[in-house]
Amino acid sequence: MRTCPTHSAMKVASGSGDKAGFFTQGRWWLKALPVKFKAKIVGMARNIKKLGQEDPRRVVHSLKVGLALTLVSTTLYYPDQVYKNFGSDAIWAVMTVVLVFEFSVGATLGRGLNRVMATLLAGGLGIGAHYLAKLSGHIGEPILLVFLIFLQATISTFFRFFPKVKARYDYGVLIFIMTFSMITVSGFRDGHIFDIAQRRLSTVSIGSVACVIVSIVVFPVWAGEDLHNLIALNIEKLGNSLEGFGDEYFEKTGGEESKDDKKFLEGYKSVLNSNSSEESLANFAAWEPGHGRFPFRHPWKLYLKVGTLARECAYRIEALNGCLNADIQVSSEVSTIIQEACTNTSLESGKALKELALAIKIMVPPSSADSHIENAKSAAKNLKSLLKSGIWEDIDLLKVIPGVTVASILIDVVRCTEKISESIYELASKAQFKSVEPTLSPKKLHSGQNQSIKSAQLDNGPDVGINVRELTLPSPPSENSSAPKASKQRMGV
Amino acid sequence: MRTCPTHSAMKVASGSGDKAGFFTQGRWWLKALPVKFKAKIVGMARNIKKLGQEDPRRVVHSLKVGLALTLVSTTLYYPDQVYKNFGSDAIWAVMTVVLVFEFSVGATLGRGLNRVMATLLAGGLGIGAHYLAKLSGHIGEPILLVFLIFLQATISTFFRFFPKVKARYDYGVLIFIMTFSMITVSGFRDGHIFDIAQRRLSTVSIGSVACVIVSIVVFPVWAGEDLHNLIALNIEKLGNSLEGFGDEYFEKTGGEESKDDKKFLEGYKSVLNSNSSEESLANFAAWEPGHGRFPFRHPWKLYLKVGTLARECAYRIEALNGCLNADIQVSSEVSTIIQEACTNTSLESGKALKELALAIKIMVPPSSADSHIENAKSAAKNLKSLLKSGIWEDIDLLKVIPGVTVASILIDVVRCTEKISESIYELASKAQFKSVEPTLSPKKLHSGQNQSIKSAQLDNGPDVGINVRELTLPSPPSENSSAPKASKQRMGV
Repeated sequence: MRTCPTHSAMKVASGSGDKAGFFTQGRWWLKALPVKFKAKIVGMARNIKKLGQEDPRRVVHSLKVGLALTLVSTTLYYPDQVYKNFGSDAIWAVMTVVLVFEFSVGATLGRGLNRVMATLLAGGLGIGAHYLAKLSGHIGEPILLVFLIFLQATISTFFRFFPKVKARYDYGVLIFIMTFSMITVSGFRDGHIFDIAQRRLSTVSIGSVACVIVSIVVFPVWAGEDLHNLIALNIEKLGNSLEGFGDEYFEKTGGEESKDDKKFLEGYKSVLNSNSSEESLANFAAWEPGHGRFPFRHPWKLYLKVGTLARECAYRIEALNGCLNADIQVSSEVSTIIQEACTNTSLESGKALKELALAIKIMVPPSSADSHIENAKSAAKNLKSLLKSGIWEDIDLLKVIPGVTVASILIDVVRCTEKISESIYELASKAQFKSVEPTLSPKKLHSGQNQSIKSAQLDNGPDVGINVRELTLPSPPSENSSAPKASKQRMGV
Repeated sequence: MRTCPTHSAMKVASGSGDKAGFFTQGRWWLKALPVKFKAKIVGMARNIKKLGQEDPRRVVHSLKVGLALTLVSTTLYYPDQVYKNFGSDAIWAVMTVVLVFEFSVGATLGRGLNRVMATLLAGGLGIGAHYLAKLSGHIGEPILLVFLIFLQATISTFFRFFPKVKARYDYGVLIFIMTFSMITVSGFRDGHIFDIAQRRLSTVSIGSVACVIVSIVVFPVWAGEDLHNLIALNIEKLGNSLEGFGDEYFEKTGGEESKDDKKFLEGYKSVLNSNSSEESLANFAAWEPGHGRFPFRHPWKLYLKVGTLARECAYRIEALNGCLNADIQVSSEVSTIIQEACTNTSLESGKALKELALAIKIMVPPSSADSHIENAKSAAKNLKSLLKSGIWEDIDLLKVIPGVTVASILIDVVRCTEKISESIYELASKAQFKSVEPTLSPKKLHSGQNQSIKSAQLDNGPDVGINVRELTLPSPPSENSSAPKASKQRMGV
């Protein structure tokens, strides 16, 4: 059988054309590869640098995990005497370190305590289950054991859905299920169930204790302090947004465009979604012992209340921001009437919020904000009476609307600011914040503090959960003596 | 030495008084104990019932965990032949089940794949590290091993801070650190490092596969479906809030108080904070294979976009709600002028949002919402021209303000609704939603769907992360054949 010569020639030609195309493409791809690879590497290096610079505590945390792991594995594996004691169960200590070591002391302590207590409880119950099963004979034993494993796993898993359990004991319940199952099934094959349980408990305890010690001793990161700083920072962001709002709004109507300047926008936006990080920080903080300026049982829950009110204020600022980007802007004739009162209201409530943030930060009652709140209230009153006055009769209502909307939101913002102030007064009284002593002039303190708050804010990115950097504020003179030491340690971070 | 008799007598008397007080207190406490205990038990039982009723899938999930754990432990521990193969390493399969089994298929698959891949990678690298260390002699070996453990733990921990890694591979990195450390240190004591790594990999794989199979086969919970329903439900809640707003606002000014009726408030409030649950559901959904109405690579990220726009709309509704609770309410003369236009605007945008929710729910392009959006837009236009008209000249501006504020927020809400509609059109085109075929009259479909959406909403509590109950919608006729089977399975839940 012969094929048509022209047809086969065509086939070859088209085939070689495809091949040539494939090769050129392949060559191009190969040539591009090092360039692409280099770009990837450079991009990644830049990302790593950025992550580290945003919060150097991340680098320290990584080193701490390495240290704890190295400590535990060298102590339990290399000395022959110790290894004889624990045998291959030493691996549980290593595992514990990896699973328990968290970013903050509170999270690490919470996980460590959960793990140890759950292992203890599950070990005890597992031994009980083992002896109970032994009583039911050779055939009954495995059946009863399987039934008990099924029962405890089902019940415990359901308990994990309770909001309170989920918030604080989720990891413990998980470890309980695991340890109970392991002890009961191991016991079926290996008679020395008591030894198994005891060795597991001691290795888990060693691992947990090592984590907690490294976490507390080497540049500790306190969730409580992070929560404290996060709330203060959030309120300060709101203050900054408000302070800038008046000028931004009325300058814009004056013709100047400043859409590129997004900093003003970004400030309050991170407050809108900080709910979940606040809650988890408060949960971790509840595990922490007293540290620095915070005693044990510091009222962490009140911070959540302040945070919620701050978020409500942020919703108002979001509405103001909507006015900033609206199609219809305030007309110049309206602007001349309300500009001063609006700018004053937003400026004064912004200042009040910043003073409130500062009061939290340095832990004094927020009395320095009172005058600004009074000013804001009188500016709002002024604004109201302006709206009431007869000067509007000649102006078209549609032209008045944007200005009136802004004015009424601002009046609402003043109300929010008052509420925030009240909640901070409550916090100050429950947490026994002390007034600044007269030896340090308030003005000097404020300017110094403001600077450090500002520098901290510049360093902070949007990922607040792990990003709220420790502020190295000069501790106020009424502090206890351990504070300077702690802040010195932190300064090294 | 004698003491003064009167003095000692006084002491005794006061002492016995104290004692008597203590005993009465103690007795009272003991008497109260059973009552308190009973109250606690009853309260707990009520809580358990409530949790189960809110989402029966929680009960099913608990049973599934029990089932998977029982399956794995009976298969690996009881048959002698199998136990001979794995020995005490069988415990790793049990551990895997406890740590990998999650509420949704996506989360389980993600954790399982992370665990298996990380074990494989870490096992390989651990063996490599072991042979490298062997080369460096008897003294160099432990030093090099410790150094390698420290290095990998530090680097890997730092990688966990990358947002992308944190979102999808966090668990994998954790398991990588753990397995690498375990293989390297075990290898130092136990020469059979290859066996260790291989047994660990196979037990971990068995455990993961068991989890995935049970998770998919027994009443599967799909994170993707939950995300889909959550977004639809959120938009529907916004729609309900808006639909009711007009009547609520103007009736209130008419004198009727309805502060007790908080349902209207609660609807949109859960949308404000649903950001984190939406994100985690989208992350889990990305792991899921095609299921029911959702093919593999369904555009889950677009749901997040719709969710963000819905949240922006919720901020506006929060502002409207502020007007509802404001001190100064709209006056009756203003009310008569704008009531109709305002009520129409909120009613029509509410209806539009509910139609949009329905379109997502039944996966059709949201064209049924178009007419409502047009109505809302013309109502808003009407509102604007009312504001522009001359009827305001005789009324005091301060009286006009509340009404004008509500009107301008409502005009903004219409803009938000339009944006949401656009994003849902984008979703519909990317996800290839098909139009409803004419065999089923749209009216009939709508009423049926509305009912099931409503009943689902009644069942749902605020904890949306795990609470968005599967809706057993009759699948539209254009569905593929697997859908009815899936929905049948779900109906049994």
